[in-house]
Amino acid sequence: MSKLSKVVALAGGVGGAKLVDGLAGSLPPEALTIVVNTGDDFEHFGLHICPDLDTVCYTLGGLANPATGWGRVDETWHAIEGISALGGPAWFRLGDRDLGTHLERTRRLRAGEKLSQVTRDLCRSWSIPYTVLPATDDSVSTWVCTDAGEMPFQEYFVHRQCQPQVTGFRFQGAEQARPAPGILDALHAADLVILCPSNPWVSIDPILAIPGIKDAVSSRPALAVTPIIGGQAVKGPAAKMYRELDIEPCAHSVARHYASFLTGFVVDQVDEKEVGAIQGMGIEVLLADTLMKDRSDRLRLAAEVIQFAQENLLRWPSNNTGVESV
Amino acid sequence: MSKLSKVVALAGGVGGAKLVDGLAGSLPPEALTIVVNTGDDFEHFGLHICPDLDTVCYTLGGLANPATGWGRVDETWHAIEGISALGGPAWFRLGDRDLGTHLERTRRLRAGEKLSQVTRDLCRSWSIPYTVLPATDDSVSTWVCTDAGEMPFQEYFVHRQCQPQVTGFRFQGAEQARPAPGILDALHAADLVILCPSNPWVSIDPILAIPGIKDAVSSRPALAVTPIIGGQAVKGPAAKMYRELDIEPCAHSVARHYASFLTGFVVDQVDEKEVGAIQGMGIEVLLADTLMKDRSDRLRLAAEVIQFAQENLLRWPSNNTGVESV
Repeated sequence: MSKLSKVVALAGGVGGAKLVDGLAGSLPPEALTIVVNTGDDFEHFGLHICPDLDTVCYTLGGLANPATGWGRVDETWHAIEGISALGGPAWFRLGDRDLGTHLERTRRLRAGEKLSQVTRDLCRSWSIPYTVLPATDDSVSTWVCTDAGEMPFQEYFVHRQCQPQVTGFRFQGAEQARPAPGILDALHAADLVILCPSNPWVSIDPILAIPGIKDAVSSRPALAVTPIIGGQAVKGPAAKMYRELDIEPCAHSVARHYASFLTGFVVDQVDEKEVGAIQGMGIEVLLADTLMKDRSDRLRLAAEVIQFAQENLLRWPSNNTGVESV
Repeated sequence: MSKLSKVVALAGGVGGAKLVDGLAGSLPPEALTIVVNTGDDFEHFGLHICPDLDTVCYTLGGLANPATGWGRVDETWHAIEGISALGGPAWFRLGDRDLGTHLERTRRLRAGEKLSQVTRDLCRSWSIPYTVLPATDDSVSTWVCTDAGEMPFQEYFVHRQCQPQVTGFRFQGAEQARPAPGILDALHAADLVILCPSNPWVSIDPILAIPGIKDAVSSRPALAVTPIIGGQAVKGPAAKMYRELDIEPCAHSVARHYASFLTGFVVDQVDEKEVGAIQGMGIEVLLADTLMKDRSDRLRLAAEVIQFAQENLLRWPSNNTGVESV
């Protein structure tokens, strides 16, 4: 059995951050690169807000609110209460500690720094030893196409609370965007790419939409962890989106979503009946308890994923050398 | 004795806000218009911050921190702590509640609203029934000329803690600026203009530098309350500035500062020896306890100022009619 020495994880928000946290507990810093969705990023009150990057970094830095999975622990809400008292738009709940991040990041971006530079420095300040990369330094915005028209992701997700019926997605700016520096190198050097249990439509697809990333992922062993358990998303609108797009929300649908490049898939134990169909697509399957209720779940699932990959996926060509690693 | 029916107060930060608060306790809402210095306004973290407007409004709205005179009561500092942890510029202490104001004001200014509109709406939200006007909707920035070069006011005042030696002042943009809507009308209709106990150089002069305001003030009875007591400023660098400009920091110097248009002056009781010299400039003098330690001091001083003005200053022409009001 070959040992994983280079893993790249693609992650969105809460679910992705949880698995990333588990992986960070199983892999040394030099073995883990995390590529985070920036399609949800938006400008609000003139601040550049990166919800998924913050969720991942707060989680890795031990700063996340354990109750919600997003936002900061010991958070206060005085600024947004003040905005609300003035009749301002308070639908996006900006916490006071969280605001510090948005203010400083926005200041540095305005001063001409790249998001990847700022993210690297934020991680350093928060004592996060892992490499966290935004998918791109360019502007790529997820737009949700719905029966109520097209709208930016946060408008759909937070303001409209995922009420409109989804008909599709658009990643504005993706065609002209470039992967953030380091992503393609990390992917090409990866023994394994892990697609975290994040929403395929709005967390992983915006990353894969950036030219070069999907090709690089396709050249490596790639494993996805299902974000759908028993027909439900653990959090967020993934299952609702599948239904509205006339696709059954199930692990099998997620595997099919990624089928063109997927080599391994982690199905929840409650969905054992789907294993055969997924294996039928030529994908290796791990059946596991994928619900991460606490930190020990994250560590356990990550360890299982890593062991499964080492035992089953690394026979794929590694490091572009064409040499079998087993 | 004529009764004051229209008063315009020119105010800077803490000292001005205290007297304005006292005046608000003595005059009905329709009788008091407050014109606030905007020369200290600056952009920080992309936010449009108006320190004097906020101090005046927080004070009038009962939202001010009673210990400092500026900032919000029950304030927390989580955002700026977060910025500090990221190595960002934390020299300007942005409170969390205060940030709500800056964020909402900045959002509305970016949406094309004028500062005077935003200020009116903020006052409405804070149940402030008095008319509070920024000196101008245009950009006028106070620059401090020092032995360490010219610098924007907040850089001098907060970041450098008034350390550099002052050689002069410059109100950038003043020549092209227009008084905010309502100011000239209020001044022309005023029975009395009160120059609050604010720094003459950097709180009152930037207001008077806006074309039209000084002429309008000069056409009305105008009374100043000294910001210098026993050679000291109650707060801030006024006395230090006078010294560095080779002028004795004393009530007499303040009166001379405004002498070209001043009709009345309020000297602190500890400076009784200066009364004769000020009267010698043709200015009526009230000797009073001008130190406002608590709200009752504010109300008492405001009542004394109003009574003094009614008894001594309203013999001046009123309302452009040329008719004596006594």
